[in-house]
Amino acid sequence: MGFAARVDDFRFEITAVDGTTQGRNGRFYTPHGIIKTPVFAPVGTQATVKALKPSDLVELGATLILSNTYHLYLRPGDSLVRDLGGLHNFMQWPGPILTDSGGFQVFSLSDTRRIDADGVTFQSHLDGSYHRFTPESSIAVQENLGADIIMAFDECPPPTDYDYVKLSLTRTHPWLERCLAAKTRPDQALFGIIQGGIFPDLRAESAAFVTGLNLPGYAIGGLAVGETKAQMTATLDATVPLMPADKPRYLMGVGEPEDLVNAVIRGVDIFDCVAPTRLARHGTVYVHGGRLNLRNASHAKDPAPIAATCACYTCQHFSRAYLRHLVQANEILAHVLLSIHNVHFLVNLMQQMQDATRQGTLKQFADIFLSHYQEVRE
Amino acid sequence: MGFAARVDDFRFEITAVDGTTQGRNGRFYTPHGIIKTPVFAPVGTQATVKALKPSDLVELGATLILSNTYHLYLRPGDSLVRDLGGLHNFMQWPGPILTDSGGFQVFSLSDTRRIDADGVTFQSHLDGSYHRFTPESSIAVQENLGADIIMAFDECPPPTDYDYVKLSLTRTHPWLERCLAAKTRPDQALFGIIQGGIFPDLRAESAAFVTGLNLPGYAIGGLAVGETKAQMTATLDATVPLMPADKPRYLMGVGEPEDLVNAVIRGVDIFDCVAPTRLARHGTVYVHGGRLNLRNASHAKDPAPIAATCACYTCQHFSRAYLRHLVQANEILAHVLLSIHNVHFLVNLMQQMQDATRQGTLKQFADIFLSHYQEVRE
Repeated sequence: MGFAARVDDFRFEITAVDGTTQGRNGRFYTPHGIIKTPVFAPVGTQATVKALKPSDLVELGATLILSNTYHLYLRPGDSLVRDLGGLHNFMQWPGPILTDSGGFQVFSLSDTRRIDADGVTFQSHLDGSYHRFTPESSIAVQENLGADIIMAFDECPPPTDYDYVKLSLTRTHPWLERCLAAKTRPDQALFGIIQGGIFPDLRAESAAFVTGLNLPGYAIGGLAVGETKAQMTATLDATVPLMPADKPRYLMGVGEPEDLVNAVIRGVDIFDCVAPTRLARHGTVYVHGGRLNLRNASHAKDPAPIAATCACYTCQHFSRAYLRHLVQANEILAHVLLSIHNVHFLVNLMQQMQDATRQGTLKQFADIFLSHYQEVRE
Repeated sequence: MGFAARVDDFRFEITAVDGTTQGRNGRFYTPHGIIKTPVFAPVGTQATVKALKPSDLVELGATLILSNTYHLYLRPGDSLVRDLGGLHNFMQWPGPILTDSGGFQVFSLSDTRRIDADGVTFQSHLDGSYHRFTPESSIAVQENLGADIIMAFDECPPPTDYDYVKLSLTRTHPWLERCLAAKTRPDQALFGIIQGGIFPDLRAESAAFVTGLNLPGYAIGGLAVGETKAQMTATLDATVPLMPADKPRYLMGVGEPEDLVNAVIRGVDIFDCVAPTRLARHGTVYVHGGRLNLRNASHAKDPAPIAATCACYTCQHFSRAYLRHLVQANEILAHVLLSIHNVHFLVNLMQQMQDATRQGTLKQFADIFLSHYQEVRE
């Protein structure tokens, strides 16, 4: 296997700063291509962005895909993925891939889990079998999967429990050092994760530790897991300024349109979320101004597309009436077409923010988007 | 609405005869394009070939799509489809479409039904509501849907019950005359359906009546509904020679690979079947020689595609190991990718038979295909 990184890999260059906000455009170089930021990464949990072919993703403009270590470790197994040439070859995604560490899913999905200073023992949500993740094993799994960006194994604590979050940092920080020590592949960038819940002092403590390790990128973890929107925003305000400007900043698990805008204007570069494809499977689509549920009878006879100005395959071809019919009839094509639209919506939103940043008009764009976004929600 | 047919529409020209069999190649002209025969039509029951976008169908070479009158009448309603520009516009399929009459589904799907000389009253499988189809209403629904080829409303009787099949012809034949009288759109070709079960005398009686009406095409109905393969073949041998050579011959609901070959060498031109997409949703794929069930553990680590010589998107990109993973994980992409392969397999099989017919080698092709097809079945 060719593990050598090119000289440019994992370099991050700022290509534009907005000036009216903290927003910036960048390029992050990876062995599988350049990621232009700000970027939204669709989630391919089980080595597939649900309902979408790689060719669909290319067509709608996706550049970075996230896949989940926990799921792939359990099924089909990371050794199998490695033997089949790694995730890029396995799922036939030619562009950059990011894998998480599995830590979040161990806490959110497994039937039972027990955490100790060394790692976490958990039961599979598939068959109840027992497994153990440590910083070292998470890195080993992620090296087998072979993503371009891999994530430190950490604990994602309840964000509003000060004492627990503080205790959790005493595990998460040493685990990051162990991840770094365990890592062997030069063609993968290990990102550290800043935790600390909603508490500025804990975020500061974590940011100081994590950014002190001089990693190729840094993530903000532990948000969008139960805190209020105001708490999320305040935490970004407290945390982003503590992250070095010359490294990509990744806000994990966040992908609601208004959250993307709120974070980009604060200087965040990378996002991922299952929302666009999950909402699609429930018949809900993004439009400028909010969301539409296509099950609503108001769409039954509507010859208009979801959005007249949208350039996606779905909006270029199909009426709301047809899409509603597919949703009502529980047709697989509904999942396909609505997923295309929703992922395109977020990819295109990031593109619009890149354009606005280049023009120095990101504040204006964000103000209009956010004020309009509150108005319409079905 | 532009209902005028072009001067060429519904002309059928024979472009090649095999010589070694009864097989022939033809072109059937429709308002939405030329159908090169022999042709396999994927089924889009609810105005969607399950899991496939129109662009997928174009890419894999499909030309004719079948859609079901019974389903679309019940949901979303044929008036709605008409108001949205007809099926072609509604489902964004630019090529030829064929609709059945709804008769078969009334008998196979509805909760209860009562047949009389005038038509059939039935309960919806969706909500138990009562509905009635007559020859006139079936044609009216099919005119709202707007397919290029529409089918006569008939009864599909149990094929081995002589007395019932004979009685049924006394309904089906007058119904065909009523369909013809009810039809108003010049841009739709009404095909008559020859019934008669497995009984040569009844097939002859039906063929004489139906072909006497000088329609643009004729179908063989009532097969692949419970009779043996030998009975199907014998019925084709008894019926096809009674159908005019200068009109397309359509064998309804038949699409197993060996059945396609057996019917093409007997001079049948058009086929449809849900099998390729239904099998795909159960993890089963066609290969030369039979079928594979990708759930089988033997595929778990296999880096090979389903078929090394297959030109479909699925085989050009993905390993059996990956496809098996998607099937095991119940991912929507499994349905998409396996449907692409299976539909492509049948479309390509018809293309191969067209080529063999042009070269006068169809018997050889069929012998090899059929002998090999019996060997491997998982």
